Amino acid sequence: MASVNPPRGMRDFLPADKARRERVLAVIRERYRSHGFDEIETPVVEEYARLHSGMGGDNEKLAYNILKRGLDADAIRAAADDPASLTDLGLRYDLTVPLARFYASNRGQLPTVFRSIQIAPVWRAERPQKGRYRQFVQCDIDIIGDPSSRAEAELAVATIDTLDALGLAGGTIRINDRRILDAMLEAFGFAPDERPGVLITIDKLDKVGPDGVVAELTSRGADEAAVAAFHAFLTRPQTLEYLPYGEKQIRKALPEGVADDIVEHLVGIGTAVAAARGSDVDIPLVFDPFLVRGMGYYTGTIMELAHPSVDYSLGGGGRYDGMIGRFLGQDVPAVGFSIGFERIVDLVDDAADAAQPAVVLVHDRDMPTGDLLALKAALVGEGSRVRLELRTKNLKALLERAASDGYTSFATVSTGATRESIEIKPLG
Amino acid sequence: MASVNPPRGMRDFLPADKARRERVLAVIRERYRSHGFDEIETPVVEEYARLHSGMGGDNEKLAYNILKRGLDADAIRAAADDPASLTDLGLRYDLTVPLARFYASNRGQLPTVFRSIQIAPVWRAERPQKGRYRQFVQCDIDIIGDPSSRAEAELAVATIDTLDALGLAGGTIRINDRRILDAMLEAFGFAPDERPGVLITIDKLDKVGPDGVVAELTSRGADEAAVAAFHAFLTRPQTLEYLPYGEKQIRKALPEGVADDIVEHLVGIGTAVAAARGSDVDIPLVFDPFLVRGMGYYTGTIMELAHPSVDYSLGGGGRYDGMIGRFLGQDVPAVGFSIGFERIVDLVDDAADAAQPAVVLVHDRDMPTGDLLALKAALVGEGSRVRLELRTKNLKALLERAASDGYTSFATVSTGATRESIEIKPLG
Repeated sequence: MASVNPPRGMRDFLPADKARRERVLAVIRERYRSHGFDEIETPVVEEYARLHSGMGGDNEKLAYNILKRGLDADAIRAAADDPASLTDLGLRYDLTVPLARFYASNRGQLPTVFRSIQIAPVWRAERPQKGRYRQFVQCDIDIIGDPSSRAEAELAVATIDTLDALGLAGGTIRINDRRILDAMLEAFGFAPDERPGVLITIDKLDKVGPDGVVAELTSRGADEAAVAAFHAFLTRPQTLEYLPYGEKQIRKALPEGVADDIVEHLVGIGTAVAAARGSDVDIPLVFDPFLVRGMGYYTGTIMELAHPSVDYSLGGGGRYDGMIGRFLGQDVPAVGFSIGFERIVDLVDDAADAAQPAVVLVHDRDMPTGDLLALKAALVGEGSRVRLELRTKNLKALLERAASDGYTSFATVSTGATRESIEIKPLG
Repeated sequence: MASVNPPRGMRDFLPADKARRERVLAVIRERYRSHGFDEIETPVVEEYARLHSGMGGDNEKLAYNILKRGLDADAIRAAADDPASLTDLGLRYDLTVPLARFYASNRGQLPTVFRSIQIAPVWRAERPQKGRYRQFVQCDIDIIGDPSSRAEAELAVATIDTLDALGLAGGTIRINDRRILDAMLEAFGFAPDERPGVLITIDKLDKVGPDGVVAELTSRGADEAAVAAFHAFLTRPQTLEYLPYGEKQIRKALPEGVADDIVEHLVGIGTAVAAARGSDVDIPLVFDPFLVRGMGYYTGTIMELAHPSVDYSLGGGGRYDGMIGRFLGQDVPAVGFSIGFERIVDLVDDAADAAQPAVVLVHDRDMPTGDLLALKAALVGEGSRVRLELRTKNLKALLERAASDGYTSFATVSTGATRESIEIKPLG
């Protein structure tokens, strides 16, 4: 017989956890909707060929694939030389590939600039470890059809507002542009074929520091003169807090050779976010010329969400103008931001649950069911949440468990009790 | 390249549909919670052995199975004689098998009587047809650990209250007991081995009428005397509206030989529901001695939800006392009720969406992004939902689309516009 545990790397959610998750999702959904985004849903399953077309990057290797129905012995034997013939569908590993497919399929019914919300699980067959699961929820917002910096600004403002609404004020978005990274590496003299490797190294700057980056670049055999010039650039005094955003300050932080329109795009994002937040001193945006981000499909702006309470990223995103065109045969600008739901849900305070009164009715065994259910219905009708509990010897344990499920008060009831006659006492 | 459509039998949900679905789910979730049920969540994936242990009935054949990761050519070749060795996991086809597994795994952390909510998708590789999908949402409530009729009454009251809250007043639950069907078939003289077939025929009574049932029983070669006695029973004058429930009336509708405790259980459900609904004349319960329900795991009460607006069932459930014991090695009483979400969501009125003000800001191309986002932020801060739209030649089409997405008003804005200077007009 199979184990009674969930499959490896996946989780059951007990009532208290599930309630917190749904409460956080409701806030995220409501805030994103208020900012003019519209939620959509796609099937959790996509065609195998779509999931393995190169757009998913390294995640493609982590996909769960679904066995074709009705395979006979011959078909299985033939698949020894062609394992992909065993499968026709797979579980999605992200929400971006399905969004591109959705947009190509439903474009005629969507606004010219389409602002989407997707809140849904994805699956990756990774080695399970602390904080990393094989099924987890992603919360993505994307803007398709707007090439201007306004799109990034709308994403940033909606994201920070959502964090505020969750009681996580103080979030900051680090921002950069892939084209700036390209220009920087070119300016320092790194050859085109060594640039992807150099980017992987720069991505470790937070962990290993400038000297660590330079050591790794040297040991990789990168061009010596380039490494030396880059070291000087990395270690010169600089602040990353360009608030409010100014073209001059950003220019100073950059090497020569970055095109004007790229800088203007960044400045445009900063200016718009500052206007939306209504403050010149408390703008939640930081320009970071060394921000890299992993996914290969980014073509312009890249962003990453930080919060003072934790030392890891809470989400990120960027512009991927090329991707939807591959489905549609026509270029469509697109930019997205994904919140790391599994990380955020652990930071949110439990206290918010107490909004609805929640009463435990502790009853005797001989109380008529009709009396009991009439009493329950009266309290439910008043707007309360009501749980029935048979009185046991260990009343304390019973009430403690109810309190941990969010119940806030209780009443002991017996035959003949009515709404008027019972006394409701606070729990704990 | 793969098609841009969703996989066969599965659906994309556009913004208006998705918003209605989430609105209906929020009402269901809130009502069930108020009735003392607690939501849980299990992974969409379960172990293959668990999904194919016989508890899923015919649905087991419809499961999507997941290919093992890292199979080599030899393993695939060997699987020609043992196809199950290709798979270790599968997508769940219902929420009952996962609930039983969840309960066995987490029992120590759950209340003695556990009232669960599960709202989640399931997958079945059925032939797609109108109104039948390969991915669809189920909304289940279950009570584990209460053998009394109070459990059925709580399920029935919560279900009808939820339907009321969705604007679908007038719902009725037909109710019967598997043991009554057994006793009935025995009383009429059907042999034990022909009873399962007879039940399948009785299940068609609504469609083919008493004469149709008798004709099919005869053509199946059922015992002639039994069929004749049963025909007389089927066609005698009777009403199914036993309101309020009374032991005498139910006894009159039954053949001899039904044990007293079974009748008392039914009467207990009726009495408690009447008390909770606070009315002797408008009880949403109807005893139907010919109600069958398909699933093999039911052991006692069976229920089915009807509504005057449609001629098909909107949900159903029943008692399945044997099932959890098979996981736990210890008998645990259990009873559940499942709402047919995909059917209900189509019946619910769209009007409820208008609660939050929703404004479209139609702007000129040259309006500075900072002005625009500051205006948007001011309206979002007031509690509105706000969409930005670039003014186009066909303003009417643009506003009509926004109205179909639930927007209720608009303002035309340009450079220098502020919250105080703009005029917000109703849409349409």
